[in-house]
Amino acid sequence: MLLCDIGNTSLHFFDGKKDYKKDIEHFDSLSIEEDVYYICVNPRLKEVLKLLKNWHDLSLHVEYSKYYETIGIDRIMAAEAISDAIIIDAGSALTVDIVKNNNYEGGFIYPGKKAMAKTYSGISSALDYNFNFECDLNKLPKNSQDSISYGYLKTLYLEVMSHNMEVILTGGDALEFAKIFPKASVDERLIFKGMQKILNSTSTFTID
Amino acid sequence: MLLCDIGNTSLHFFDGKKDYKKDIEHFDSLSIEEDVYYICVNPRLKEVLKLLKNWHDLSLHVEYSKYYETIGIDRIMAAEAISDAIIIDAGSALTVDIVKNNNYEGGFIYPGKKAMAKTYSGISSALDYNFNFECDLNKLPKNSQDSISYGYLKTLYLEVMSHNMEVILTGGDALEFAKIFPKASVDERLIFKGMQKILNSTSTFTID
Repeated sequence: MLLCDIGNTSLHFFDGKKDYKKDIEHFDSLSIEEDVYYICVNPRLKEVLKLLKNWHDLSLHVEYSKYYETIGIDRIMAAEAISDAIIIDAGSALTVDIVKNNNYEGGFIYPGKKAMAKTYSGISSALDYNFNFECDLNKLPKNSQDSISYGYLKTLYLEVMSHNMEVILTGGDALEFAKIFPKASVDERLIFKGMQKILNSTSTFTID
Repeated sequence: MLLCDIGNTSLHFFDGKKDYKKDIEHFDSLSIEEDVYYICVNPRLKEVLKLLKNWHDLSLHVEYSKYYETIGIDRIMAAEAISDAIIIDAGSALTVDIVKNNNYEGGFIYPGKKAMAKTYSGISSALDYNFNFECDLNKLPKNSQDSISYGYLKTLYLEVMSHNMEVILTGGDALEFAKIFPKASVDERLIFKGMQKILNSTSTFTID
């Protein structure tokens, strides 16, 4: 049995012990024979997987009334995994979601670091820098690289900290954002935990 | 005599009474015979204007030691105009700068609304919305449009308010941002005020 979190560019698998990624472009869904319980934000691949008997869409077993119609299924799974915390999922988008007493309180979407760096360089070639995640956020910057780093990171930091809750970081860039949220815990398997919880709670599946 | 603030796409003139804009692409610098005191972030046009006797570059008269090397000349002029405030210049980039007791304290750069909307729609077509400047920033969102609006605006709001200073809005999108900073004053001629101050303080020019 495998769990699989499918994004727009890659498939993230978890076999109960280790997790690994596969590139979506070169992936052959027929190459896997065991049961796969998945979530998928890629519409094209979703259509293919529907036809395969051993691929099971966990999104069909979510209680959507707790969330909102257009929320991403990956955000739902991360929220299902916890009972009280603020979750930052740092990927191509950076989503921030709050769960209190097992209730989803809402959340917001911020650009991921790659998209945001492209935004700054698109405004002006003079702003074509990588973000400095070690930038001192307690001091107003006086150089270009820190001016965009502070603009991207301090604003996010203040919003997240304003909720005064435990912060959990997940997603591909979690370790980088841990530099600006030093008290946060990093859990790269948070989404799989939520998926496992949904899987356990439904009687639809007979798990091998 | 004219003042002129030249950006990457337009020239913003002030004749002492009214201000108006001209598109940079169709502008003929030889069409103006009177003296023009200007700042310019457009490198190509800057080279042309250097050759014209009636165009005077005010950036040559700024005391740069107060600022930092790569800061935009428009941010300097806005900062020169005030003695104690936080300035938000909302254009293609949104710059935030702080002046205390006539000292420049530093600042940061955030994407302007057009660039940021493009960033979200580039991440996913599901995030292709205009920002809702009337979004309730006191409540975590539960729909896609407010999720990106809150992500863009609440983060900025908290950073700006954390300084506990008078807020002055300028730039093309000042009136829109005034919706989320209701106590801010809007001054669309702030940069011209700084330019006029530099002009008055230098003895290089003989003003007609």
